[in-house]
Amino acid sequence: SKTLRIAVIPGDGIGTEVMPYGLACVKAAAKIYDISLEFEEFDFASCAYYQKHGKMLPDDWKETLSKFDALYFGAVGLPEVVPDHVSLWGSLLQFRREFDQYINLRPCRLMPGVRCPLANRKPGDIDFWIVRENTEGEYSSIGGTMFPGTERETVIQETVMTRIGVDRVLKYAFDLAQSRPKKHLTSATKSNGISITMPYWDSRVEAMSPSYSDVKVDKFHIDILTAHFVQRPQHFDVVVGSNLFGDILSDLGPACTGTIGIAPSGNINPTGKFPSLFEPVHGSAPDIMGKGIANPVGMIWAGQMMLEHFGYKEAAAHMLKSVENVLARGEDSVVTADMGGHGNTKSFGDAVEQEI
Amino acid sequence: SKTLRIAVIPGDGIGTEVMPYGLACVKAAAKIYDISLEFEEFDFASCAYYQKHGKMLPDDWKETLSKFDALYFGAVGLPEVVPDHVSLWGSLLQFRREFDQYINLRPCRLMPGVRCPLANRKPGDIDFWIVRENTEGEYSSIGGTMFPGTERETVIQETVMTRIGVDRVLKYAFDLAQSRPKKHLTSATKSNGISITMPYWDSRVEAMSPSYSDVKVDKFHIDILTAHFVQRPQHFDVVVGSNLFGDILSDLGPACTGTIGIAPSGNINPTGKFPSLFEPVHGSAPDIMGKGIANPVGMIWAGQMMLEHFGYKEAAAHMLKSVENVLARGEDSVVTADMGGHGNTKSFGDAVEQEI
Ligand SMILES: CC(C)[C@H](C(=O)O)[C@@H](O)C(=O)O
Ligand SMILES: CC(C)[C@H](C(=O)O)[C@@H](O)C(=O)O
Repeated sequence: SKTLRIAVIPGDGIGTEVMPYGLACVKAAAKIYDISLEFEEFDFASCAYYQKHGKMLPDDWKETLSKFDALYFGAVGLPEVVPDHVSLWGSLLQFRREFDQYINLRPCRLMPGVRCPLANRKPGDIDFWIVRENTEGEYSSIGGTMFPGTERETVIQETVMTRIGVDRVLKYAFDLAQSRPKKHLTSATKSNGISITMPYWDSRVEAMSPSYSDVKVDKFHIDILTAHFVQRPQHFDVVVGSNLFGDILSDLGPACTGTIGIAPSGNINPTGKFPSLFEPVHGSAPDIMGKGIANPVGMIWAGQMMLEHFGYKEAAAHMLKSVENVLARGEDSVVTADMGGHGNTKSFGDAVEQEI
Repeated sequence: SKTLRIAVIPGDGIGTEVMPYGLACVKAAAKIYDISLEFEEFDFASCAYYQKHGKMLPDDWKETLSKFDALYFGAVGLPEVVPDHVSLWGSLLQFRREFDQYINLRPCRLMPGVRCPLANRKPGDIDFWIVRENTEGEYSSIGGTMFPGTERETVIQETVMTRIGVDRVLKYAFDLAQSRPKKHLTSATKSNGISITMPYWDSRVEAMSPSYSDVKVDKFHIDILTAHFVQRPQHFDVVVGSNLFGDILSDLGPACTGTIGIAPSGNINPTGKFPSLFEPVHGSAPDIMGKGIANPVGMIWAGQMMLEHFGYKEAAAHMLKSVENVLARGEDSVVTADMGGHGNTKSFGDAVEQEI
């Protein structure tokens, strides 16, 4: 079987701290299942790179990274050094857009051994996917300021939805829902308040529904939807949302299952024309960086999603099971503080690697 | 003391069902404290009115309602009859904008006797205010569709923030934070992704901070902020957000404190130039309308906020205490189903009225 080439981009903050453990676990699983992987590490897409070069990425980044089969990404952003919108729009958001990674796929699953902030929930109760549009919508680069510095100052930013952009993410979400036992799709909207783009989103959901007659579809306005995540997370199977709504729900969902420290994220280009990107949800977390206490599970689980994406189902299942086993044991000296333990990145990461 | 005139607008769905109990409780409190109130009821701002007249409001609504000291509002929207964006933009959102009710103020408080969906939280642990911008931002009416019906279809909606609009809601939030013991203001942002309007919002927070040197300010991106609401709600004191972010947080917050059925909302014009509007957060809830089971507490508490707004502090405190007493007793035959009881709107509403 062919060798898959993976670009490793640790980035900033705890991204650089969890990456070694993610890599170790992916390599361990690849070894068992005889998967041939090749890794190359890059220092760009980090604020350190920005400080040296005055930009987040080299000019030929697209050419360089296009040659890889996937990007394994840590986290980016150090607001004390570079404003967030500069570092993010100069790196991660570029990758998503330029590599047309139009699906952001994130699992919400209450794992064994994880303390749930919701009352009376046990593993199995919460198990759904969030499918987020990842290239357009509220994350636009169109807009500007008029009358700057005066009392009349007016700032405008445009939300842009296209039929192509909306339909392809809905199709992915419908397909995913159809492949699951519950066959249930929930659409996040706000068509009562956001009166132009959101009714359009709803109309595309309605237009596609008849082609998936076996999929049960419902929709909720984003405000009450966040309430339902807390009050009845068992209701959900696949949830699809715009760029912003998907972003919100995919932090809230993992928070409801214990900690966003364990949540992974696939930024997927389903056509395969460009590489997909796999990263933890948690971000660079400047508040805890340098302490070696970051939870490595999000990074490891992101590696698991990468193997799954490559089609290595068995290896992926093995990795996920190993993560679950370590979580289930919940050894105090292994598990990180965000999950109530006294372990650190190393103890937790090593334990998963060994379990694999 | 002068007579205060209140326009009563029950609206749609459960709005019409909870309104009588809200009124009964406000009247009971007014009687004790010798407050002179006059009520006039209107049938517009409802889908029934729309069916008769082809519009949500009569042409002279602004003139008519301007004469009142406050609007006591139930809920609007029956999507089976009138699309939500038509009914809402034709009524409630008109009121907010035309009466320049630029503050939407919503308490999040874990009340005694209320079952909390979060593990290990008790009354007192959660007690904060959400201050939402209520007239501009993401709720704009600018935008449209190009190439409709084709593959090139593109839909745009503009978010509009003005210095006047942002500064006045921030000022209100800073003032409120300053008046509270913890003096802590949290700003909701998303400046890493929404790269034009949100960095502007942040810059206005930073510009105002020095004038409130005794107020501790922090900010979180909206995604992780929703996670914090679930994982550490005790952190918050006053939270300020844009129209959309405030909307989301003020459903999520009350959900974290048990049920959005008890949450009230003040749509306030602090200048007094136009009347303010008081309503429950829950909306028209078509799924349970007609059954008489809606929780009347949101409506009653909204009436309490109205008395507070008029400056009747004692009467307002009395009303709130009475609500708390009934909740704390938590009698199964009194309390509504959303709170785990077997009572209905009448049993619950009557109990609070009697307690007052
Ligand atoms: C009904 C809807 C337009 C409204 C809003 O989004 O403002 C409601 O959710 C609210 O919070 O008052
Ligand atoms: C860092 C930020 C721009 C990013 C986003 O909003 O997409 C992050 O929150 C995420 O969810 O991947």
